[in-house]
Amino acid sequence: MKALVYHGPKKVSVDTVPDPKIEKLTDVIVKISSTNICGSDLHMYEGRTDVEKGKILGHENLGEVVEVGKAVDTVKKGDKVVLPFNIGCGFCANCERGLTGYCLTCADQSVPGMAGAAYGFAGMGPYSGGQAQYLRVPYADFNCLQLLDDADEKENDYVMLSDIFPTGWHATRLADLKPGESIVIYGAGPVGLMAAMSARIQGASQIFVVDGHDDRLELARKIGATAIDTRKGKVGEEIQAFTNGTGTDCGAECIGYQCHNAEGKEVPNLVMNQLVSAVKATGTIGVVGVFIPVDPSAEDELAKKGQIAFDFGKFWIKGLKLASGQCNVKTYNRRLRDLIHHGKANPSVIISHELPLTEAPNAYKHFNNRDHGWTKVILHPNAE
Amino acid sequence: MKALVYHGPKKVSVDTVPDPKIEKLTDVIVKISSTNICGSDLHMYEGRTDVEKGKILGHENLGEVVEVGKAVDTVKKGDKVVLPFNIGCGFCANCERGLTGYCLTCADQSVPGMAGAAYGFAGMGPYSGGQAQYLRVPYADFNCLQLLDDADEKENDYVMLSDIFPTGWHATRLADLKPGESIVIYGAGPVGLMAAMSARIQGASQIFVVDGHDDRLELARKIGATAIDTRKGKVGEEIQAFTNGTGTDCGAECIGYQCHNAEGKEVPNLVMNQLVSAVKATGTIGVVGVFIPVDPSAEDELAKKGQIAFDFGKFWIKGLKLASGQCNVKTYNRRLRDLIHHGKANPSVIISHELPLTEAPNAYKHFNNRDHGWTKVILHPNAE
Amino acid sequence: MKALVYHGPKKVSVDTVPDPKIEKLTDVIVKISSTNICGSDLHMYEGRTDVEKGKILGHENLGEVVEVGKAVDTVKKGDKVVLPFNIGCGFCANCERGLTGYCLTCADQSVPGMAGAAYGFAGMGPYSGGQAQYLRVPYADFNCLQLLDDADEKENDYVMLSDIFPTGWHATRLADLKPGESIVIYGAGPVGLMAAMSARIQGASQIFVVDGHDDRLELARKIGATAIDTRKGKVGEEIQAFTNGTGTDCGAECIGYQCHNAEGKEVPNLVMNQLVSAVKATGTIGVVGVFIPVDPSAEDELAKKGQIAFDFGKFWIKGLKLASGQCNVKTYNRRLRDLIHHGKANPSVIISHELPLTEAPNAYKHFNNRDHGWTKVILHPNAE
Amino acid sequence: MKALVYHGPKKVSVDTVPDPKIEKLTDVIVKISSTNICGSDLHMYEGRTDVEKGKILGHENLGEVVEVGKAVDTVKKGDKVVLPFNIGCGFCANCERGLTGYCLTCADQSVPGMAGAAYGFAGMGPYSGGQAQYLRVPYADFNCLQLLDDADEKENDYVMLSDIFPTGWHATRLADLKPGESIVIYGAGPVGLMAAMSARIQGASQIFVVDGHDDRLELARKIGATAIDTRKGKVGEEIQAFTNGTGTDCGAECIGYQCHNAEGKEVPNLVMNQLVSAVKATGTIGVVGVFIPVDPSAEDELAKKGQIAFDFGKFWIKGLKLASGQCNVKTYNRRLRDLIHHGKANPSVIISHELPLTEAPNAYKHFNNRDHGWTKVILHPNAE
Repeated sequence: MKALVYHGPKKVSVDTVPDPKIEKLTDVIVKISSTNICGSDLHMYEGRTDVEKGKILGHENLGEVVEVGKAVDTVKKGDKVVLPFNIGCGFCANCERGLTGYCLTCADQSVPGMAGAAYGFAGMGPYSGGQAQYLRVPYADFNCLQLLDDADEKENDYVMLSDIFPTGWHATRLADLKPGESIVIYGAGPVGLMAAMSARIQGASQIFVVDGHDDRLELARKIGATAIDTRKGKVGEEIQAFTNGTGTDCGAECIGYQCHNAEGKEVPNLVMNQLVSAVKATGTIGVVGVFIPVDPSAEDELAKKGQIAFDFGKFWIKGLKLASGQCNVKTYNRRLRDLIHHGKANPSVIISHELPLTEAPNAYKHFNNRDHGWTKVILHPNAE
Repeated sequence: MKALVYHGPKKVSVDTVPDPKIEKLTDVIVKISSTNICGSDLHMYEGRTDVEKGKILGHENLGEVVEVGKAVDTVKKGDKVVLPFNIGCGFCANCERGLTGYCLTCADQSVPGMAGAAYGFAGMGPYSGGQAQYLRVPYADFNCLQLLDDADEKENDYVMLSDIFPTGWHATRLADLKPGESIVIYGAGPVGLMAAMSARIQGASQIFVVDGHDDRLELARKIGATAIDTRKGKVGEEIQAFTNGTGTDCGAECIGYQCHNAEGKEVPNLVMNQLVSAVKATGTIGVVGVFIPVDPSAEDELAKKGQIAFDFGKFWIKGLKLASGQCNVKTYNRRLRDLIHHGKANPSVIISHELPLTEAPNAYKHFNNRDHGWTKVILHPNAE
Repeated sequence: MKALVYHGPKKVSVDTVPDPKIEKLTDVIVKISSTNICGSDLHMYEGRTDVEKGKILGHENLGEVVEVGKAVDTVKKGDKVVLPFNIGCGFCANCERGLTGYCLTCADQSVPGMAGAAYGFAGMGPYSGGQAQYLRVPYADFNCLQLLDDADEKENDYVMLSDIFPTGWHATRLADLKPGESIVIYGAGPVGLMAAMSARIQGASQIFVVDGHDDRLELARKIGATAIDTRKGKVGEEIQAFTNGTGTDCGAECIGYQCHNAEGKEVPNLVMNQLVSAVKATGTIGVVGVFIPVDPSAEDELAKKGQIAFDFGKFWIKGLKLASGQCNVKTYNRRLRDLIHHGKANPSVIISHELPLTEAPNAYKHFNNRDHGWTKVILHPNAE
Repeated sequence: MKALVYHGPKKVSVDTVPDPKIEKLTDVIVKISSTNICGSDLHMYEGRTDVEKGKILGHENLGEVVEVGKAVDTVKKGDKVVLPFNIGCGFCANCERGLTGYCLTCADQSVPGMAGAAYGFAGMGPYSGGQAQYLRVPYADFNCLQLLDDADEKENDYVMLSDIFPTGWHATRLADLKPGESIVIYGAGPVGLMAAMSARIQGASQIFVVDGHDDRLELARKIGATAIDTRKGKVGEEIQAFTNGTGTDCGAECIGYQCHNAEGKEVPNLVMNQLVSAVKATGTIGVVGVFIPVDPSAEDELAKKGQIAFDFGKFWIKGLKLASGQCNVKTYNRRLRDLIHHGKANPSVIISHELPLTEAPNAYKHFNNRDHGWTKVILHPNAE
C-alpha cells in the first residue's frame, strides 16, 4: 500500500510499504478514507523528537473496517469508524478509570513507568500511523467509535473526533470552564480553535483567543470568539479591559513548548506565565499544548532540561490550579459525535485543504511553515 | 491590653496596647483564650515580608465573645468561638462560592486585584492579630464558628480549626486524595502533620511524610504515616519501593518557598520537582506551603522574581494536575469540628508547648530555630 | 403604596398598604420596577396553600435601591438590583455551603426543622412580596445582585434572574445534564421553557419538551427544543423513537403536584412515572416542580398525604438518580446575569404581557386559566 | 464438577454437572476457592424471581485461573483473582464510562433495553454461578482483579470484593457521604455492615445502623457504628436525639423490597419513607437494597406493580436527592483491595461460617431464616 513515511528532519515521502495485517485476535484493519496532518506531527517532521526513520505517521484517522480479528465482538466488516489517536486496552488500571491516554498495556514496555500509546508517534509505542491506505487497530472493540447514518456526509466533521475536537474540548475541561464563565485560549491553531468551539458549545460568556496570524484569528472570530492579536503587544491589557480588570475565569494553553514571542524567538515560559497573569485568582489553567521532559536542541538552558522559569509565587498567591496532559479521547468522543450528528458542532469549519495522499509531503512543508491559509489539511489516501 | 507586637526582623515583644473596639456594627470582640504560633508567622518574624512594624501578630485564635455589634444576629455574648485565619465578608463574588480565603471586600483595597484577608498578616489587610488578650472580629456572624459543650475540655483540639487542621485537610483536597489511594506529604511541620492526619481520616491506603527532623518524623509515625527521612538521601527511591515503582496517587507540598536541601541550602524548586517525580502519571499535587511573587532577599536569581525552574516537561508528559493556595477555612471547619467533637480527630497531638503570652518572644525564637521538640506552641493570653 | 394582596381563593386585589421600612440594620428598601407573576403564585391564588389573608404576593423582583440600612456595606442607594426569590442570611450552616434556598436563619422559626424563606410565599416566613411599589430586602449585601450598565435596556431579561431562569437552569443541574447529552423536560410553562433554554446553552445534543398547549409548544420550538404534544397520546413512543430506543440521558420535572392527564384529570404520579420510563438506565431526573407534604383538597387518597404511587422497582432496576427541591438562586444568578449581559441568553423571549400593577388581578385570572397566549406576565408597579 | 443448583422455591442441591469450558477466546476458567452466599441469592431461593430451574447460583467468587482463552492478554494461569459479581465487556457505551453494572454487551439480549449481567442470577443473562468447583469468566482481562502476595492469607477479606464490600461502599457513595458527616444505614445485614465499615473508613463523624436482630446490631457496634434497635420502636426519635434534631446528613437503604415492620409484616415503603424523615433537608439517600419492577407474589397491591407509596411531597420540600441501583464493582474494587492489603479494612469480620460446598443447602436454609448467628457464609468448593 501507499503510506507517508518519515525519513529524517523535514524528509517525508509517500512510499509503497507492506499492508498491515491482523496481528492479534482483537485487531481490525481499517481502510482509511480521511486522515489529518496534526500540529504535533510537525514536532516529528522538524526533527525535534527521536522518532525512528521509516515510521508511518498519522494519528487522526477515519475509515471503513475491512478485516476483523476472531476475538472482536461488536465491530463488523463494513463499519465506518473513527479512531482515537490514543490506543487503549480498556482493562488496565488507567483505562478502567477512563485514562485511555495513559494505557499501561499498550505503552512502550521497554520504558519503565511509561504510560500511553498512539498511532505513528514518537515514544508512543510501535504502532504505525494512518497516513496510509490501511491501518491496523488494536483492541478494536474498545478503540473503534462507530459512526451513524450520516458518516459519509459529515466525514470531514467526524474525522476531527480522532484528536483535535476532543483535545480542544479537553483543554476546556482541564481549565474547568463552567457555563457563564470567561476563558482565554492561547493559540489559534486547530486545537485552540477547537477549544474555542468547545467553549462556545458549553456556554462560555466570553471567549478570547490569542494568536498572531490573520487567517487563524479570522477563524477564531468565525467560531464566535474575540480575537486578540499578539502583534499588537497588549495581550494582558486587552484581557483586563474586556473583563473589568479581574482577568478571565480560566485559561487554556494550546501551543506547547515551541511558543514564540512577537519577534519570533522561542520563549518556552512565555505563554504559561502570561496565563498566570491573565487568569483571575482561584482560576484554573488547562494545558494541552505539548511540553517535553528533555529538549537537547532547545536554545534555552532550562528548556534543554525540560524546565521553564515558572511564576510560581504569583501562581500560589492567586490560588490557581493547573491541569495538563494529552486528551483521553474516549472520554469525550461519543458525545461529541452526537453533537455533530445533531447539528450542534461543525469542526470541519477550520479545514483549509483536502488532498490526496500523494500531496502529503507538500502539505507538511506548507503547514510547518505556517503558510497563510494552511490551517488544517485532510488527506484522503484511497480517493480516486 | 497585652499583645505580641512585631518590631522588625526577629524582634517581637509583649507590649501594652489599646484594647480593640467594635468598629463596625457587624463586629464582635473576642477574649482570646488560645492562640497559636504558626509557621507562617515565622516568615514575618524573619523579616522576609513587608509587614509593618507595630503589627500585632497571630491568626490562629479561639476565645469567648465579650462584646457584640448591633447588626450581629446569631453570635451571642458568652459564645465560645474559633476563628478562621482568613477574614471573609460572606457576600462577595468569592465568598458566595466558598472562596473565603480570597474575599474581595475584606482585602486590602489599596492593592488592585487583591483578594483575601487575615488577622495579623503581611499583605492581608489592616487587621490586628490575636496573640493578644482581645481581638476584633469583622463580619462576626460569618466568621465565628460556635463550639459545642466540650469547648473547654477540647480547647487544644478546637484551636487547630483556626488554621492548620483545615489547611492540612486542604492539602489533601487540593491533591484530590481519594479513599484507598496513597499520598506523599512533603514537610512534617504542623501543617504536614495535619495533612497526614487528614489523609488517615479520609481513608488513604498509604501515607508517606518526608522530613529531616527526628521529632517531626516521630509525630508523623504516631499519626499513622510512614516517615521518610530526607537525611538518608533516598526519598525518591523509597517512595518508588513502597509503591511498587508506580509512584503515589497524589502528593502534598506543606513547606513553601523556604525549602532546604540535605545540606541546609535553600533550594526553591527542590520539593516541587521531587513531587513531579514522586507522583504517578495522571496524579495531582496540592500546594499549601506558601510561595511568594517577589522575594528580594532570596539568593536564587529566579526566586527573587518569584519563579522556580519547574520540571514542566515531565509534569506535562505525566498528565499531572497542580492546585495551590491558602485554605478557605470555612469550607472545612464545621465538619472538622464535628470530627473532633465525636472523637474522630485529635489535632492537639502535635502540641509541644502551652505557654502564657509573656513567653511568646522566647517561643518565636525556638520555633524559628526548629529547635528539637518545639513542634507547636499554644499561647494562653488570658491565663492566670 | 400600592400592592397586590391575597384575600382568599381566587381573590386578589391591588390595595393601598403601608410602605415597607428598614427593620434591621442589614436591610435595604427597593423600589420595584419589574415583578413577575409566577406559576407557583397560582398555588396560593387557587387556595391550595395555607397562606394567610392579607399577604402581599410576588417573589420575582427587580428594582432600584432607595434606602439602605446602616450595616449594609456594598449595596448603595441608586443600585439597580435583582433579588433571588429565596431569602438567605449568608452565614448559617446551609447558606455557607450555597444552599441559600434552605436558609436556617430566615426560615419560619415557629416550625421546627424548617429551612428556607421567600418573599410573599406560603410557609416561607413572614416576608412581604414584591408585587408592590416597594420591597424590604433583608441581608441586602447577600441578597442583592447588582446589575451592569445595560440594566434598563435588558430589564425584561434580568428580572428572570429572580426565579425562573435560575430555576430552569437548576432543573438541568439536578438532572446532571452534560454537554452532548439528551434531556426530556416535562412542562412548557415558564420554568420548563427556561430549562430548555438552559439545556441549549449548556450544549445538550437533543432537548425534548413535553406539554399540551399550542402556545407553549411553539415557544419551546422557538427556543430550539423538539416539542412533544401530550394530546397525541404517544409521549413515550416519541421519545424512544427520537433516541433510538434507549431513552434520554436525563429528565426534568417542571410541573409539580398538579399535573393532569390528557383528559384534564389531576394524576399526581403521572409525570414522575413517565420520567422513570423515558430516561435511560443510569440516568438522572431533576424535579423543580413543586410537590407538597400534605394536600387535603386533593382527590387522590395518597396525594392527601403527600404521597405518590411511585414506580420505584423500575427506578431501582434502571439505577436511576433523582434530585429535587427549590433552586438556590444565588448558585447561578451571577453567571446567568453574565450570559444575558454578553448576549448568550434572552429569557425575556417567553414574555407575553407587560402590565401595570393595577392589571394584576386580571392577569392572575388569565394565567391561572392557562388562557392561550398568557405565557408570562411582568408587572411594572411604578410605571407611569 | 460439583455445583449448587436451583430446583425450585427453597429447593437447592449440590449436583454433579459438566465442567465449564472456554466458550470465547476472551474467557478464562477459574477454580473457585471461596464463594459466598449473598442476601440476594435468597430472593431466588425463596422463589420470588423467575430464575430458571437448573441454574447454578453464586456471584461472590474468588479463585485461581486454571485455563486461559487465546485472546486474553494480562491474566495468566495461576493468577489468584476475585471477580466482580457484575460481568462487563469493557467497551460498550456504559462500561467505557465505568457503569459496568449496566453492560449492554453482556446483558440478556432477548430483553429490549436490558442492561447488566451477573453470574448465577435471575434476569442477568445466561451465566452460571460460582457456588461450584469451576467458573467460566467472560472478558477475563476486564473482569479479573488480580490479588497480591497476601492473597491466601487474607482470602476471606478479598472474597468480599466480589460484591458486598463494594456494594456497601457504593451505598455510601450514592448517599454522597462526606468526611465529617453523619449517615444512617437501614439494615445490618452483610451489605449494611459493609456500608458502616465504608463510612468509618471515609471519616464519617456519626454512623447509625438500624436493624432488629441482636447478632447484627452487635456486629454494627463492633465495626464502630451506633446501633439502633427497631424493636424499641423509636428509630426516628433516636436519630433526631443523636443529631440535635436536624437529622443525618445522608442515609443508605441496604434492605430492599422485602422490608418488614416490627411485627414482621412486609411493608414495602416502610424504610424509604423513614429515610425521608431521618435525613436532613438537602441530604441524599443511597439505595442498594434491591427493588423490583413487578412482584406478583407480593401482598401489597402497589408492590405487585413494583410501586411504593412514597412520601414525595416531604422529599421535595426537603430538597432531597436519591440515587439507586446495583454497584458497579469495578469502580471500587481495586482501591478497596489496596485498603485490605495495607490493613485499613477487614471485611471478613462479619463472617459467621466457613463451610464446604456440600453444606450449602443447609446454609441457605439457616441464612434464609435469619437464624441467630448466621450473618455471612463462605463456601470453599475445592477444600479437601
